[in-house]
Amino acid sequence: MRYTIITVGSELTLGLSINTNAPSIARHLGRAGFYCVDQVSVPDDIALISRAVVDALSRLDGVILTGGLGPTSDDITREAICEALGVRLEYRADIAQLIEDRFAERNTDLPEMIFRQAYLPAGADPILPRLGSAPGITIAYEGKFIVAMPGVPREMLDMLENDVTPWLKNSFNPQEYYKLRVIKTTVRTESLLQESVNDIIDSLSNVAVGIIASPGEIQLQLLARAESENAASEAINKAESVFRERLGNRIFGVDEQLLEEVVGSLLLQHGLTLALAESCTGGLVSKLLTDIPGSSEYFVGGIIAYSNPVKHSLLGISNKVLERYGAVSEPTARAMAFAVREKLDADIGIGVTGIAGPGGSSDEKPVGLVYIGLSQKTLSLCNKYVFYGSREIIRKKSAYAAFDMIRKLLIDSCENIGSE
Amino acid sequence: MRYTIITVGSELTLGLSINTNAPSIARHLGRAGFYCVDQVSVPDDIALISRAVVDALSRLDGVILTGGLGPTSDDITREAICEALGVRLEYRADIAQLIEDRFAERNTDLPEMIFRQAYLPAGADPILPRLGSAPGITIAYEGKFIVAMPGVPREMLDMLENDVTPWLKNSFNPQEYYKLRVIKTTVRTESLLQESVNDIIDSLSNVAVGIIASPGEIQLQLLARAESENAASEAINKAESVFRERLGNRIFGVDEQLLEEVVGSLLLQHGLTLALAESCTGGLVSKLLTDIPGSSEYFVGGIIAYSNPVKHSLLGISNKVLERYGAVSEPTARAMAFAVREKLDADIGIGVTGIAGPGGSSDEKPVGLVYIGLSQKTLSLCNKYVFYGSREIIRKKSAYAAFDMIRKLLIDSCENIGSE
Repeated sequence: MRYTIITVGSELTLGLSINTNAPSIARHLGRAGFYCVDQVSVPDDIALISRAVVDALSRLDGVILTGGLGPTSDDITREAICEALGVRLEYRADIAQLIEDRFAERNTDLPEMIFRQAYLPAGADPILPRLGSAPGITIAYEGKFIVAMPGVPREMLDMLENDVTPWLKNSFNPQEYYKLRVIKTTVRTESLLQESVNDIIDSLSNVAVGIIASPGEIQLQLLARAESENAASEAINKAESVFRERLGNRIFGVDEQLLEEVVGSLLLQHGLTLALAESCTGGLVSKLLTDIPGSSEYFVGGIIAYSNPVKHSLLGISNKVLERYGAVSEPTARAMAFAVREKLDADIGIGVTGIAGPGGSSDEKPVGLVYIGLSQKTLSLCNKYVFYGSREIIRKKSAYAAFDMIRKLLIDSCENIGSE
Repeated sequence: MRYTIITVGSELTLGLSINTNAPSIARHLGRAGFYCVDQVSVPDDIALISRAVVDALSRLDGVILTGGLGPTSDDITREAICEALGVRLEYRADIAQLIEDRFAERNTDLPEMIFRQAYLPAGADPILPRLGSAPGITIAYEGKFIVAMPGVPREMLDMLENDVTPWLKNSFNPQEYYKLRVIKTTVRTESLLQESVNDIIDSLSNVAVGIIASPGEIQLQLLARAESENAASEAINKAESVFRERLGNRIFGVDEQLLEEVVGSLLLQHGLTLALAESCTGGLVSKLLTDIPGSSEYFVGGIIAYSNPVKHSLLGISNKVLERYGAVSEPTARAMAFAVREKLDADIGIGVTGIAGPGGSSDEKPVGLVYIGLSQKTLSLCNKYVFYGSREIIRKKSAYAAFDMIRKLLIDSCENIGSE
């Protein structure tokens, strides 16, 4: 099934909000067998929304809309769907009752305008929301589908996973199935990955492969197309296993898995704790680790030694080392890792020091130069990197390089670390 | 001038990449007087790109494309524009020469396929790139514009600001001018802001106003429309000043200004340094502060006391306080702020402790409960918050609340801080 995503909201078309709903939907449904052909963002305007729906139905198997289902007069996706299909809004007493019950539970006042949400396009089925108050909509129309979900990402994702995907899978019998899978690697550059797997990509007949780089992560994006769901799954699993055989531990995960999550699981699995000393990353490594719920099981804390006096006073890096080798140096990175592990009584210590730019560089020490130290009771490692890109990119690459050092240590494949 | 943005790339339509180019362009050109009506993302497919271009030119004044201008066979935006306009590609010796020179400078091998970039649609003018190797394209076609820029955000932004915007302003004489301005406030909720300014919004005749909430920041989005650029600027400046009079210090900035940037400038201005002790935010506050180049001028560092033992050992919070009041409590937040200021020898100390969830809550201490302490030599403040939302949202709201405490302190308007 081929479909388009229409995201509704003037904040999107004015550029004031980043669109995360469209990629979430495309990824999720891509893994469920549905292929997103294109995506459109339109303002809160009945004519423009309706036009986009009519256009999509004229050339594809369906359309998914998000946004514009709230109670205010700006929320006009319901009306736009009516205009596109030539039907009327109908009052649904069951939805009105649900809204009343929900507000009674919460003991909050019931604003009158909330009942706009009890009107649905004729022929539509409501999706009753578990989160928020906006019902979603599903319509089967001349063998095609129209789905509308609220724009709030949490509410949308809940409906997408628990209502929309099962409904689509049960109601439609596509002639072609798609399966999307992302293989995530820590290979350093796009072209290195390309060289390593070019022959595999050429040999795959029913799986299209793209290579995409983001800071600290190079992805293989696999899209299989087949006549049955099983055949698509089989093709994509087979392709994955061929890439896995070639790339081994350079693959750290698939689909939504994050490197920081993988590192967290490994630490948990080994029963080890981690402490961080950060300079140029300024808290980014800790922030990423603690994005993961439950990270307090393995992450004890860290020291952000942004200024040299703090490196000395809090981490005890000797002024001699700082003067002789500089704050951005291998001895400093090793000492930071060692000190933070000792001070915070952790099993593993990491020290990150570098020049994120744009200022602070010299002829010997360019922007992008980063040292990462790793300390365990009987081990001291240090890697040197020269990253290219903006301040943001250099900081991200540094964080992911630190995670990858821990990962490689824990999967017991240290050949790439080197400890000179 | 009304236009659409077409972002090209299968990684976008598959949902594997977040589209930041479209919002950057819409915001930037919105401030320059051009109105983005809608946005489309299409895969690397000549027919789909060309169809989107034809559709846009049939109803709007222009189209801006990004992506698909690289040297590989996937990069087919040039061909798609030719198909849409019914013209051919032409070889441009001047561009070929430029590419050769650029590679010679860098001493890198010249891949043959790079010369695909020397072919432009007939009638197009090249935009020679300062970053990267992909030339952009401008075309004036029957009074309308077609612009294509590379997909790499840094390269795109450089061309947008330095080439495309001046070209558009010089080449076209729009009949209507648009001005976009975002006013950023630290008002707590959308509805509170709505109540405070509803009468102003109703009284504005030529400026449309939207209210948008993101964690820690509620925005007023102003869009003025007028017959001349001056009239549009005047209308939007006047509207801004009316809102400023009403909201005063609750406004912290406009357009691209970030709260962490404003706090940094205030610290610099006052010659004060800052140290952070973070628990539930786990490095996020430090990360945001150090996103800003030059933050080492005022940020000395921090302690991430994620576990209780670290709160005790590194910050010296007494076990008595931790046992009696708990890690998430006012005494702990105040003590964290005090200790980190003393230990790191800073002028201001901040302590953030709370329950970001999903785990860790109790009947007395729900998910979202956050205490933020602030310590100066002769001052100790503490605010209590109960934030609603996901782990990510609670952490963000906590960080921005901490920034706002510092901001209010430094602009000497402490009436909203309160000290319990």
